[in-house]
Amino acid sequence: LKELKVTILAIGDEILIGQITDTNSQWIANELTKLGFTISKMLTVGDDKEAINSSIKDNQNDLLIITGGLGPTSDDITKDTLVNFFSSKLVIHKPTLNHLTNHFVLLGKEFDDLSKTQTYLPDNCKVLPNDFGTAPGMWFNYARGVVVSLPGVPFEMQSIWETIVVPELKKKFTLPNICHKTLHTIGISEVDLAERLVDWEKNLPSNVGLAYLPRLGTVRLRLTIVSRDDNSNQVVLQPLIESLYSLVGQFIFGEGTTSIELEIGKLLLSQAATIATAESCTGGNIGHLLTSVSGSSRYFNGGIISYSNEVKIASLSIPREVIMNEGAVSEQTVSFMATNVRKLLNSTYGLAVTGVAGPEGGTEEKPIGTVWIAFSSEERIVTKKLQLTPHREKNIQLSSVLALDLLRKNLINH
Amino acid sequence: LKELKVTILAIGDEILIGQITDTNSQWIANELTKLGFTISKMLTVGDDKEAINSSIKDNQNDLLIITGGLGPTSDDITKDTLVNFFSSKLVIHKPTLNHLTNHFVLLGKEFDDLSKTQTYLPDNCKVLPNDFGTAPGMWFNYARGVVVSLPGVPFEMQSIWETIVVPELKKKFTLPNICHKTLHTIGISEVDLAERLVDWEKNLPSNVGLAYLPRLGTVRLRLTIVSRDDNSNQVVLQPLIESLYSLVGQFIFGEGTTSIELEIGKLLLSQAATIATAESCTGGNIGHLLTSVSGSSRYFNGGIISYSNEVKIASLSIPREVIMNEGAVSEQTVSFMATNVRKLLNSTYGLAVTGVAGPEGGTEEKPIGTVWIAFSSEERIVTKKLQLTPHREKNIQLSSVLALDLLRKNLINH
Repeated sequence: LKELKVTILAIGDEILIGQITDTNSQWIANELTKLGFTISKMLTVGDDKEAINSSIKDNQNDLLIITGGLGPTSDDITKDTLVNFFSSKLVIHKPTLNHLTNHFVLLGKEFDDLSKTQTYLPDNCKVLPNDFGTAPGMWFNYARGVVVSLPGVPFEMQSIWETIVVPELKKKFTLPNICHKTLHTIGISEVDLAERLVDWEKNLPSNVGLAYLPRLGTVRLRLTIVSRDDNSNQVVLQPLIESLYSLVGQFIFGEGTTSIELEIGKLLLSQAATIATAESCTGGNIGHLLTSVSGSSRYFNGGIISYSNEVKIASLSIPREVIMNEGAVSEQTVSFMATNVRKLLNSTYGLAVTGVAGPEGGTEEKPIGTVWIAFSSEERIVTKKLQLTPHREKNIQLSSVLALDLLRKNLINH
Repeated sequence: LKELKVTILAIGDEILIGQITDTNSQWIANELTKLGFTISKMLTVGDDKEAINSSIKDNQNDLLIITGGLGPTSDDITKDTLVNFFSSKLVIHKPTLNHLTNHFVLLGKEFDDLSKTQTYLPDNCKVLPNDFGTAPGMWFNYARGVVVSLPGVPFEMQSIWETIVVPELKKKFTLPNICHKTLHTIGISEVDLAERLVDWEKNLPSNVGLAYLPRLGTVRLRLTIVSRDDNSNQVVLQPLIESLYSLVGQFIFGEGTTSIELEIGKLLLSQAATIATAESCTGGNIGHLLTSVSGSSRYFNGGIISYSNEVKIASLSIPREVIMNEGAVSEQTVSFMATNVRKLLNSTYGLAVTGVAGPEGGTEEKPIGTVWIAFSSEERIVTKKLQLTPHREKNIQLSSVLALDLLRKNLINH
């Protein structure tokens, strides 16, 4: 099987001056890698005919994917360059004309001349309709391979990609048989995971790869198997997945497309249980994470953000002497927070966090990054002390995720 | 003044397979643009000698900035390629040897042979010390201009950039005199802003540019003036800034490096006032935004996340019949939320949000995206109805930011 090489080209002055990050190229690279292509180059140039033209001319790869530079405000520089390169003739494209006519009727706006230029498309390309925008994509076949030009607006590009580009790529190219499997871990660093898996990794079959994908407080392990034609990928991966569970299973919280918030939601729903939160240093971020899941109102009752000591005392009924004697960042305080919020909000479980996020407020005894987390149910209270980083935002995110993991573990042991 | 052209080259297999986004190139592009350079190309290639070498060889620009591909795990491919290209000899660099020796002593780890290779550096480059990591940067002068190679870890790269690269660039190149001024707006879309400023923009002096930088719910307006040598930039910009205030002043909430959370913090501190929040559909995100500001404990008392109706009734003392008759998403409910949380948490002001974030829960009367926000002080209550989008995460973010803007406006009119 021949390696299929790709260049990804992003077009836009606003990328070059650092005004926006080009997220399209990464998104496409990830998609193409999953399909079995090899990206050998990513390139960004401005809205400039010469730069675009030489990028297309110099391309040595089987596939060139272009994003951006379409649309009436870009003065159609990209389209004109493609027309020139492929010696196309611009002709009215009826479906695009109909789509844009409807589009302007719906908007209640005039179908102006500038927008009408978008209905003229090269006669020797396959037009890729854009249901969510005005600039369609274009697919050109030529001796060297394929050039695909897509609009730069991410959701327009992604929609065209999924509905048309992927099926067309599968038709045009003979792709390897690739299978991915992702395990999500929490509570262990990338380095520590790699150390535990060093021998295991050495013994992986040569067509299986392992990637560590860290994201604040969690690390995803992605296994990839590439084979020429057989369909036994799942069969090969299954025992490898099982051995990963036996080696680092205590850190794994999910597989595939998931998150700690989603897993918690599933567990709470399966128990028909509810949760309430009491947050100090995380300031509402745990509530924010839990409610990022659609349908979370079925298990998240709410919470109390007890940022000041007075709120801890008045709204969470924590005895004043506990805060005075033990401090707001203490095992006693966090236990009261978790238990009292559970009772006050009439919930099955309570989850609490209190800590020193920084950069102010650290002491020798309780330096910045000292955080207490607690889980409370009718039967038990579980507390844990964390020693995190000197960085405020990192501490807020890490405490939130690690508190959610404490909740998850206790939901499993329920 | 000659235009100074730049290529930014990022090196890393993990970027090409879409595992990570290259944020370094955007960061550097923004910095270089502010200094007066013109970025003509951004490029990403893998950890591959040939690809790196031809990227350097093909560079036609005055300046080539390279990030990534350093460090012992990259097998020093980038360094070797540079050594080869510049016909360097690798010699021990004493300050780097001392730095790394201390580094490993502090870590309590052995200074292994692999790490020792990092102390060998080209004899014909200027070494750029890396205080926060193990791989130093390198600066090469040659006939075509300058090549700078920097480590890929963002905070290491940024630290080297600010302490050494910027001063060296200013020494090496004759840069134009550039001045930027940023105004932050809220509550108006990029398109609507552009419409209000269309005539104003036409009359801008030719050496002044205006950029619209949108970010969920806010749009930054950045004015840039480029001049050859005079120092009157501030003088030219001042009346332009003033005219912007007269045209769209009601939407401007700050200048320079700021955020709505920071501006609110300043206003509350200046009044020695405190704030409490009652959040339904935003689920704690407003608390999270307010507490992202260091020192926010001086004015943020806390809040109640009343996600369920029972919590609205039990913890926020909203009359059950109000929720039954008017609904949880109503002007009456949001008014009670703001006023009651203010009183319960003994705060100067109360801020509340309740709405239908979606994707479930919309009705004909209250479709997804219907959100009520309220501000409460001892003297008054101000409510506002928002009609947002069909997207849950967008609705959460927009409601949060627009609620904070309601607070800000009322703090100013205080």
